[in-house]
Amino acid sequence: MSGNERLIYLPLGGAGEVGMNAYVYGWGKPGKERLILVDLGVTFPDMDTTPGVDLIMADIAWLVENVDRLDAIFITHGHEDHIGALGLFWPELKAPVHARRFTGHLAARKLEERGSDPAQVSVVGAWPETVEAGPFRVGFVPVSHSIPESSALVIDTPAGRIVHTGDLKLDGAPVVGEPFDPELWHEIAGSGVKVLTCDSTNIFVERPGRSESTLGPNIRELVAGARGMFVATTFASNVARVKTLAEAGRDAGRSVCLMGRAMLRMVQAATETGVLTDFPPVITHEEAEDVPRQNLMLIVTGSQGERRAATAQLSRGKYLGMELAEGDSFLFSSKTIPGNERSVLRIVNAFSELGVDVVDDRSDLYHVSGHANRPDLEALHELMKPQMMIPMHGEHRMLRRHAEVAEAKGIASCVAVNGTMLDLTGDRPEVAGHVEPGRVYLDGTMKIGALDGVIRDRIRMALNGHVMLSVILDEEDEPLGDPWAEIMGLAETGSSGTPIAELIEAEAGQFMARAAGKILVDDEKLESGLRRVVRQVTVEEIGKKPEVTVVISRLG
Amino acid sequence: MSGNERLIYLPLGGAGEVGMNAYVYGWGKPGKERLILVDLGVTFPDMDTTPGVDLIMADIAWLVENVDRLDAIFITHGHEDHIGALGLFWPELKAPVHARRFTGHLAARKLEERGSDPAQVSVVGAWPETVEAGPFRVGFVPVSHSIPESSALVIDTPAGRIVHTGDLKLDGAPVVGEPFDPELWHEIAGSGVKVLTCDSTNIFVERPGRSESTLGPNIRELVAGARGMFVATTFASNVARVKTLAEAGRDAGRSVCLMGRAMLRMVQAATETGVLTDFPPVITHEEAEDVPRQNLMLIVTGSQGERRAATAQLSRGKYLGMELAEGDSFLFSSKTIPGNERSVLRIVNAFSELGVDVVDDRSDLYHVSGHANRPDLEALHELMKPQMMIPMHGEHRMLRRHAEVAEAKGIASCVAVNGTMLDLTGDRPEVAGHVEPGRVYLDGTMKIGALDGVIRDRIRMALNGHVMLSVILDEEDEPLGDPWAEIMGLAETGSSGTPIAELIEAEAGQFMARAAGKILVDDEKLESGLRRVVRQVTVEEIGKKPEVTVVISRLG
Repeated sequence: MSGNERLIYLPLGGAGEVGMNAYVYGWGKPGKERLILVDLGVTFPDMDTTPGVDLIMADIAWLVENVDRLDAIFITHGHEDHIGALGLFWPELKAPVHARRFTGHLAARKLEERGSDPAQVSVVGAWPETVEAGPFRVGFVPVSHSIPESSALVIDTPAGRIVHTGDLKLDGAPVVGEPFDPELWHEIAGSGVKVLTCDSTNIFVERPGRSESTLGPNIRELVAGARGMFVATTFASNVARVKTLAEAGRDAGRSVCLMGRAMLRMVQAATETGVLTDFPPVITHEEAEDVPRQNLMLIVTGSQGERRAATAQLSRGKYLGMELAEGDSFLFSSKTIPGNERSVLRIVNAFSELGVDVVDDRSDLYHVSGHANRPDLEALHELMKPQMMIPMHGEHRMLRRHAEVAEAKGIASCVAVNGTMLDLTGDRPEVAGHVEPGRVYLDGTMKIGALDGVIRDRIRMALNGHVMLSVILDEEDEPLGDPWAEIMGLAETGSSGTPIAELIEAEAGQFMARAAGKILVDDEKLESGLRRVVRQVTVEEIGKKPEVTVVISRLG
Repeated sequence: MSGNERLIYLPLGGAGEVGMNAYVYGWGKPGKERLILVDLGVTFPDMDTTPGVDLIMADIAWLVENVDRLDAIFITHGHEDHIGALGLFWPELKAPVHARRFTGHLAARKLEERGSDPAQVSVVGAWPETVEAGPFRVGFVPVSHSIPESSALVIDTPAGRIVHTGDLKLDGAPVVGEPFDPELWHEIAGSGVKVLTCDSTNIFVERPGRSESTLGPNIRELVAGARGMFVATTFASNVARVKTLAEAGRDAGRSVCLMGRAMLRMVQAATETGVLTDFPPVITHEEAEDVPRQNLMLIVTGSQGERRAATAQLSRGKYLGMELAEGDSFLFSSKTIPGNERSVLRIVNAFSELGVDVVDDRSDLYHVSGHANRPDLEALHELMKPQMMIPMHGEHRMLRRHAEVAEAKGIASCVAVNGTMLDLTGDRPEVAGHVEPGRVYLDGTMKIGALDGVIRDRIRMALNGHVMLSVILDEEDEPLGDPWAEIMGLAETGSSGTPIAELIEAEAGQFMARAAGKILVDDEKLESGLRRVVRQVTVEEIGKKPEVTVVISRLG
């Protein structure tokens, strides 16, 4: 370590939430550190807080301002919360992207989709292969997770070694990909780990994690015992699970058909990149139409109840020629993410109405998590013996608990949420500064700031309805014709029984007839007066205060 | 039983959902049956499907059409999903309301709130007291649930005895109210039960239910071990739980303060009606400000994360002079209802940021359900030995499972969802007809139909934004002045960098200048042309198709 150079860590997303991961590391003189970015993901919107939004990304304004200091982007794995914003932000960052083969395949497609050059992605082999990026040397250590080729990063810096776990579990038999290899990790820890930046998702789960391979026998038994058609859903990117499901279908003498675009794409990508081998033969949905239902197994998208995915479509009726019926079975080989419960339950009840037997996520027999639980995380701490453990990838409560667990074992730790810059140069993490954290929304083709007021207006219209009132004034600033009102998202008539639009028009007309000249010439005064008229009418008639837009047209 | 009279059952709400319970029973010649209504509740809205709505009620149009045949309304207990619509619908029903004392107190207030006479509620004592209503004789049998004085109804009819469970659990020590009394139930079953209409909420919970009284020691231990202020939340109507919490506070030497209007009101109502006795002394929130935090216990509203309740307010900062801090504890003595997960987690994380230790609902140590689990329901079937079991109070999947459980034991059963009229006269339930089921929304002060399109418009504005375009035509149907556009809930500028409103105005102006006279004179053609112009601009600029309102003002 030379002079006053320092090692910094700055989460821009993912620290204080599960989603939109984006972690910056830097080395150099304060304000002049050379930087690398680990992951660049998205979060999914919801109707409560982000109606109509397509995707949510971390606000990376700070990184864009300092883009001349950015040497590389590393992607740990291909889940959307780690890779989803790569194509959207790359034009502002223009740094080389490093990933392993399967992840790189997905990353290249992300760039291509948004008009950037996929050749910006270079594929890196597994550890001990490394890449140099400014003052950093970075290697990809295979870990198991719920997508192939997830990796932890070993980031060697002039201040020592950082191990950034990415998303991981300690799985000795992950079905697809490399098993957890304690010896390899021991070797990596051998020369001393300064910082372990560590997944916190499952810190509240007290029992040890279970291996992906424990599910095979359960799923096989379930499929073997089914009468009619058997349909299963899971995340398409959980290729190991898809394989386990397909094998259970094959073993039960069923033809296997994959449905939903993401499902077909992921299995293809995993096969092409060599991470998935020996996948049972599959048939197309056209071929499936001719297979007797007791000989058929569908593996479909939509485990979170997404409205347009295969599962939801099947619950509403026909999907690509397939239709579920009394005696069929449907397996959710997945966990419902908080916030999606209502959508999933709606589907389960629709299946119930069709007479389909649903096996959901409560039994624990047909799904395991892709994240390390508390005992596994403690084992990892023990194995790595880091000087510091920085919890990442979790809501605040998870980071806080994870830091407590580490501190209890004598490992220095602290909660650093999005925007908190830590100095990791010394023996303990020190807060070195704050960057304004934030969220950016992809809305249609535009990026809009979370605080721009656009979404606030949408929520207000959704809660209160919208009234538009149009008035015309002539060259002498006298009302011309009658005011015109349109209402949207409100009852047409209220307590009086007269259409509300008519009442508003009448009251607005009277207001304008009574109004003094100095109000009629002043757009602002006229608008606020008319707005008040609208709200008086609606409060009296229907007990609501809608959003109001007044259009004043002056012919002068 | 005489001639062709029949016994019917018609759920209008609550069968196929958890919420808005409303069950009709009738006896008489087909189409002329005398009717009684059991419960009249609400469901709570959500942003996904019912933004801005205040309450959701069953569509009781059928009952209103046949209101001359309605002899009485019975309310089993005071939860909003059983009593919440009483005040709103009573003016259309005008039938006498029967309930036990505590429930009657709440029912009278519901009538009063909506301008009806609270004296319409008559209080009935517990079984063996009964009330006559047309051909029915009805008694209230005490059951335990998560609110005082919940009751099952024994409905004696010319066709035999119906036992309508209401919401219940089999609790031998419910802390407040009467314990489950198997002997009493045995006696009720003694003369033969024709129909058991039965709560299905917890049919998927495989273990036997636990008594409310099992929580006392756990909660006492938790409070005794706390350092700072101790705050607990639960449903205000769960008066037994509130008492257990308050006793734990008192036993730990803490002053107890109730916060949140519902909390104060419920404890008062329960005390006044005599169902709650020996409640520990409480202090006001003004007095609480002077108590050292380690000597204070707050019991507050808002266990479901409701934005304006005490819990949410405390998570955001000060509430009535109270403010949580590092070292304080917060207990959710409650279960998060599906759909509320995100709101509750937002609060838990906000507490985490304040350094407050949160004990949530995962441990099972500090909350028990108020509904009978599968083994308890089977025990009840066994005890009642009904000829038929009709599952109610549950989502479709719950009703279906419950019917399977009964059929497996040789009890005739069937799934009857809202709108399905059953004939219960014979040995098995037979479908006798269908009534169009539906939902009515209370929106402000108005009732609107779920299919009126009002809420659909709100959702569309929330997803797509709203553009208003105003144009004026003169006496000759020629454009006068320039078109005027206002946008709401959309980015102000798109890909070109020019404000979208300006682009729309320019394009709309050109469209009108180019438009043939026959378009300009035709409101419909002009509107659809302008609408197309708006969408072309927005799709090109921001990739979205907003809702569009066109206002055409003609001076002619």
